[in-house]
Amino acid sequence: MKGGIVYKFDSYRIALEVLEFLKSIGFQAEIIENWSDAFMYDFLVVVGGDGTILKLLQFLKECPPIFGINTGKIGLLTHCEPDEYREKLRDALARFEVERFMRLESTVENQELLSLNEIAVLGARPAKLIDIEVFIDDVRVDEIRCDGILVSTQIGSTAYALSTGGPVIDPKLESILIVPVAPFKLGWKPWVVKSDKRIRIEFDREVFVVADGHKTIKTDRSPILIKKSKYYAYFFKMEDRMERIVKKLRSIR
Amino acid sequence: MKGGIVYKFDSYRIALEVLEFLKSIGFQAEIIENWSDAFMYDFLVVVGGDGTILKLLQFLKECPPIFGINTGKIGLLTHCEPDEYREKLRDALARFEVERFMRLESTVENQELLSLNEIAVLGARPAKLIDIEVFIDDVRVDEIRCDGILVSTQIGSTAYALSTGGPVIDPKLESILIVPVAPFKLGWKPWVVKSDKRIRIEFDREVFVVADGHKTIKTDRSPILIKKSKYYAYFFKMEDRMERIVKKLRSIR
Amino acid sequence: MKGGIVYKFDSYRIALEVLEFLKSIGFQAEIIENWSDAFMYDFLVVVGGDGTILKLLQFLKECPPIFGINTGKIGLLTHCEPDEYREKLRDALARFEVERFMRLESTVENQELLSLNEIAVLGARPAKLIDIEVFIDDVRVDEIRCDGILVSTQIGSTAYALSTGGPVIDPKLESILIVPVAPFKLGWKPWVVKSDKRIRIEFDREVFVVADGHKTIKTDRSPILIKKSKYYAYFFKMEDRMERIVKKLRSIR
Amino acid sequence: MKGGIVYKFDSYRIALEVLEFLKSIGFQAEIIENWSDAFMYDFLVVVGGDGTILKLLQFLKECPPIFGINTGKIGLLTHCEPDEYREKLRDALARFEVERFMRLESTVENQELLSLNEIAVLGARPAKLIDIEVFIDDVRVDEIRCDGILVSTQIGSTAYALSTGGPVIDPKLESILIVPVAPFKLGWKPWVVKSDKRIRIEFDREVFVVADGHKTIKTDRSPILIKKSKYYAYFFKMEDRMERIVKKLRSIR
Repeated sequence: MKGGIVYKFDSYRIALEVLEFLKSIGFQAEIIENWSDAFMYDFLVVVGGDGTILKLLQFLKECPPIFGINTGKIGLLTHCEPDEYREKLRDALARFEVERFMRLESTVENQELLSLNEIAVLGARPAKLIDIEVFIDDVRVDEIRCDGILVSTQIGSTAYALSTGGPVIDPKLESILIVPVAPFKLGWKPWVVKSDKRIRIEFDREVFVVADGHKTIKTDRSPILIKKSKYYAYFFKMEDRMERIVKKLRSIR
Repeated sequence: MKGGIVYKFDSYRIALEVLEFLKSIGFQAEIIENWSDAFMYDFLVVVGGDGTILKLLQFLKECPPIFGINTGKIGLLTHCEPDEYREKLRDALARFEVERFMRLESTVENQELLSLNEIAVLGARPAKLIDIEVFIDDVRVDEIRCDGILVSTQIGSTAYALSTGGPVIDPKLESILIVPVAPFKLGWKPWVVKSDKRIRIEFDREVFVVADGHKTIKTDRSPILIKKSKYYAYFFKMEDRMERIVKKLRSIR
Repeated sequence: MKGGIVYKFDSYRIALEVLEFLKSIGFQAEIIENWSDAFMYDFLVVVGGDGTILKLLQFLKECPPIFGINTGKIGLLTHCEPDEYREKLRDALARFEVERFMRLESTVENQELLSLNEIAVLGARPAKLIDIEVFIDDVRVDEIRCDGILVSTQIGSTAYALSTGGPVIDPKLESILIVPVAPFKLGWKPWVVKSDKRIRIEFDREVFVVADGHKTIKTDRSPILIKKSKYYAYFFKMEDRMERIVKKLRSIR
Repeated sequence: MKGGIVYKFDSYRIALEVLEFLKSIGFQAEIIENWSDAFMYDFLVVVGGDGTILKLLQFLKECPPIFGINTGKIGLLTHCEPDEYREKLRDALARFEVERFMRLESTVENQELLSLNEIAVLGARPAKLIDIEVFIDDVRVDEIRCDGILVSTQIGSTAYALSTGGPVIDPKLESILIVPVAPFKLGWKPWVVKSDKRIRIEFDREVFVVADGHKTIKTDRSPILIKKSKYYAYFFKMEDRMERIVKKLRSIR
């Protein structure tokens, strides 16, 4: 089995250590310079933060299981801190138990975007409201003038959607969360729907469509269609994911 | 097949009409005066609002399918308005397709409470904070000084929990919503978790524990244990439940 | 000049120390057992928390300036912690600069309630909504089904009103904050209005009217009238009140 | 006395009518094509929405009193609808009672921005958090990772700030409202402070600074200083401003 190592620009030294460590416990391993090749490995170790993992996932449709070593700020998607990776990584590889999380597939002007956390549709001009209509399985559930809207997975509920009044959703409760950014309206609600629902977002002026904060398309071509992707993201299993979320959220300054 | 009719005090006249109507289309039927007998019927027609249905459910562990005719304010659990029940009820009985929704079972001082919407744990003294600790599968997720806390089903997300900053949850997304009432704290979040989670609520002074707004226990005996009940509530199927919620919520003054 | 000392039941020892200290720096002083007599002193030292000060204020229309030594949880109204009172109290008495804060006067069934923080109007039955109408200078600004409503001063914005989605208001910005408790409604807003506005609260069932969490009247006699009182609360001046609020709010668990 | 008429591009026809009307009741009047000249008139009539008035104010330090005829969506700053302007405008000019509202002066890289509603400081890259520190009179009240922050007047509380969880503030309660846009943080609060407070906003990456949605400066030069301007905005008096806000807010779709 061959592992690939991906690192955030400031974490190269730790990546080298991980490389040596993997070899020392009997795995083939190499540092991946061209992230487009990441799909070819049997497993991936990411040295970085949630941002690094999300960026990597933009290169992966088929996704080998990921183990994350946190060198970022919060690291909800990572498995451990740099000072404890030896034991945790060895155990994870020994067990090789994985879990997978739904991603969203969004269609924007015939292009497809994949996101683990969320798709954000944001007005392209600062401080100018856009008019957004939200449809769930063709039922028009809301029309809002706002700065934008997020369509998030349960995993994304602790990412951007945390900022917008959404709930924290159990990572194991596969679901889609829909929540506006700065809605100019007295009454609105976040929606949490089953993952088999198809979401349609219509709008009246130019927007940025942003997948996981990493891939951006500028468009004025409405609508955007969003549904569960068949390409899951795979991670090494984390027993205490809920507990970890609780602790990490507390630690946000 | 024999139907039982339950009515809200102000809806007796319509209940009588429904009785005649059921007979006219070939069903046995009678008005139920003693709600404890409701479990013995093949189906139930409730003439009232959500409150009437919730009150009836307090009498039902095993639950025949319910058809609701709305004579209340909002009627999210009902199937139609009084002027359209003939066609809708006839159709429902002809198809006899039912759907079921999880209820919560709460243990308070060896007593068990069943609720379709929510269990509310509310401080017994007005304007006095209680100290509440929330555990999800033994993970302590929050400690809050507040007026109380709600543990709600997805169905209950449009009931009491709507008042407390919770999201609207897809009726088909079986889940448990946990949300405080008036938390004295800068930071908190509603939680939405899988229905197999076990919730424990601990507190430091006397509380009212209220099931669906109808059954109340006063206790200072902490903790309260809440989990998914094996007794579902059954309803005749409603195709457009999501659309109905959208419309009904809009109509709240 | 003669000082009176008021203490929370668990702070008697410190109160005795304060008594000795006041004498040692040349003031007459005594511990006040009958709080109804508190108005007769030239200044008051309270050893307790915000709750003790609020309770004391229920006995005071005319209010000598108060100096608070915090033995409670948060102590936003207090001037210092027990380990620093000697210097702070000596300074305060030497300068004798006072500041005053508006109180609200509420009329309930011909009785008058005075409150520094807020008047809470809360449904008397747990988990039962009340229908509340809010008028500002006879303009009906909202009708809400909710658990209750708070009419708060700017000082009260960091007390009960903090729990209900209200803003933090500058202690020096004399104003009235109106905010519902658990509103069953998609759209509502806290209101902040000038202190010369007259508020009228109408409701449809029995409520508790609670002044500063300490004095409670049960009534079904609508409406309640609320306006700025001519009886201010007086405190020794605190230069860094805003900074103190910031720090204290952060410290809430 | 000479009136100047300003119009939104789609309201020219009504502007012409207003011109004739003003002449017919004995006033000099002309349509203003160059808005920089607007300060020279004795009064101004704006045919447009809030946006038109806000845009006009960008041209006015010294501000003649404004009368607004609403041809926009909400029109909180306008005095009447197009079908009722004759009576209302005639009355306003006969009485010539004016009221004034504070504006904010913001200093960005030696440039000064004036705003009646708010200054918005918004991250320049979509879906990328900025790190913002807020100081009130040099007291650091919050540090937030967010999409941006609004510093608003009481008048602006029903504009952009309405979208971000701020309260509705009495138009007559001169005050400054500070509220983040999409704060990535469990705990935060809108702040309402006295109008003599000086606000300082520091940040860690490029932002757009937007005055009233109309004038935008892109900068990475922190900090931005915001204080009450000596240049008020003047309007013809509106007796029922509060009532009008209540009605207009209800009407937002």
